[in-house]
Amino acid sequence: MSYDPPARPTVRTAADGSVLTSAPQDTPVDRATAAARRVIDALLRTDRANANLDRVAEELDSIADHLEQHAPQVAERLVDMWHGEGVTRHDPVTGPENAIAPPLVLTGRADGSVDGVVTLTIPYQGPPGHVHGGVSAQLLDHTLGVANTWGGCNGPTAQLNVRYHRPTPLFVPLTVSGRLVSQDGNKITSVGAIHTADGELCVSVEALFIDKTVARPRTAGAPVLRWTAPDPPGRVGDPMREGNPVPPAPAAVEPDRPPAPGGARGSRPSTR
Amino acid sequence: MSYDPPARPTVRTAADGSVLTSAPQDTPVDRATAAARRVIDALLRTDRANANLDRVAEELDSIADHLEQHAPQVAERLVDMWHGEGVTRHDPVTGPENAIAPPLVLTGRADGSVDGVVTLTIPYQGPPGHVHGGVSAQLLDHTLGVANTWGGCNGPTAQLNVRYHRPTPLFVPLTVSGRLVSQDGNKITSVGAIHTADGELCVSVEALFIDKTVARPRTAGAPVLRWTAPDPPGRVGDPMREGNPVPPAPAAVEPDRPPAPGGARGSRPSTR
Repeated sequence: MSYDPPARPTVRTAADGSVLTSAPQDTPVDRATAAARRVIDALLRTDRANANLDRVAEELDSIADHLEQHAPQVAERLVDMWHGEGVTRHDPVTGPENAIAPPLVLTGRADGSVDGVVTLTIPYQGPPGHVHGGVSAQLLDHTLGVANTWGGCNGPTAQLNVRYHRPTPLFVPLTVSGRLVSQDGNKITSVGAIHTADGELCVSVEALFIDKTVARPRTAGAPVLRWTAPDPPGRVGDPMREGNPVPPAPAAVEPDRPPAPGGARGSRPSTR
Repeated sequence: MSYDPPARPTVRTAADGSVLTSAPQDTPVDRATAAARRVIDALLRTDRANANLDRVAEELDSIADHLEQHAPQVAERLVDMWHGEGVTRHDPVTGPENAIAPPLVLTGRADGSVDGVVTLTIPYQGPPGHVHGGVSAQLLDHTLGVANTWGGCNGPTAQLNVRYHRPTPLFVPLTVSGRLVSQDGNKITSVGAIHTADGELCVSVEALFIDKTVARPRTAGAPVLRWTAPDPPGRVGDPMREGNPVPPAPAAVEPDRPPAPGGARGSRPSTR
């Protein structure tokens, strides 16, 4: 496999790999977002009898009022936040400007994989003291999308199959990783995992993506994107409609299928 | 199927169903959290050249400092946030006290299903103008957990298989729904979906949960929980370890398996 990191969207090249996502910087918007993350966490931890919570609510509303007064129309802002063709800064997993994102910083490796280390706290809790299963799914979905870009493909998720092997702990460093496994027509198969620092496998994922460029908005009010996922094997109904059978699980990926030649297809703009 | 809503953890009974999650109230902590949600959203929308962002960062840091100064140790807070056996208020999907949660409010129906309507905005964006695939997975994972509780079971996710049928739009009401389909020993199968208001199926999910009570922390520093997911069919390796085959997809659920008698098992405490 040959990889050509400079040809793909990266933010900077580190000694041990290329950083594929936009790490927080010492800029006003990144500082404000980092402070908002502290507020989210502290609101969950503070004493419920804290007599100043009403005052906190007023101050936060006042800050939101100010920010909203200085906000362009959403359609204009969408064009701005998707400008260029490189790495964006707003997504809910790696986005330094999104206070919902931990944020995870992902690095591309010479073997075609991507990985990042993140420590999750109370806002990401599912079972007591452990990471919410949906949060793990979200981290992995995004990581696989970045792994696809690193492998030269890009496009939306069609299927995401997540397995939970053991509880994923809060408050300790977790390694989130992914790699593109194979490509068959426009179908991309990728895998990933979440491990603890001592190498315990907590969550694994296998996913199918559609290799297609999703256009970025270039003018306010541009038509919304449309795509349809490829039909999985067997009849797929709406599981919440009366009389529809439960959709069959996707067919197993053949483990002996050779990995795609990652560097062969060149770079394409990421929609992540 | 017979359902016995009063025997299960609910917050209140509405005319058209039982509300299963804790909806935001007019209390100081819920008001402060709602204001924090506005800040998260407005930080992503405000003009990047806003000269007051440094001041905003300082004010948010000051609020976080105050909240942290009034916070107990995390181990104590964990006991407090999991007190009792009923519905909690802190999770990242439905939690009114978690600014990361939209929040989704779920209602249990007489047919055994649960559903809620939510409108997602910029912080939850994946592709331009649309919901991040990982966010949809997170909403569905949590909704299925609540559906299991409504059906009389409860326990952690073992497998989550999500299918993306078409892009899920931001800024419009989405219905998130789920229901328990069957139980086989300690394995619970549940399905769910996300629809637009005009009934378009955007995302569907089928998941396997382990029916087991996860103990809530009752004393600070209580031992962390441990569980191991049941072995899925076929060999399951770590997909990120060299030489391991890609894990096979889970076996299809038999669509003709009868639904579990939802009301037969009684209520058990939720860990959601």
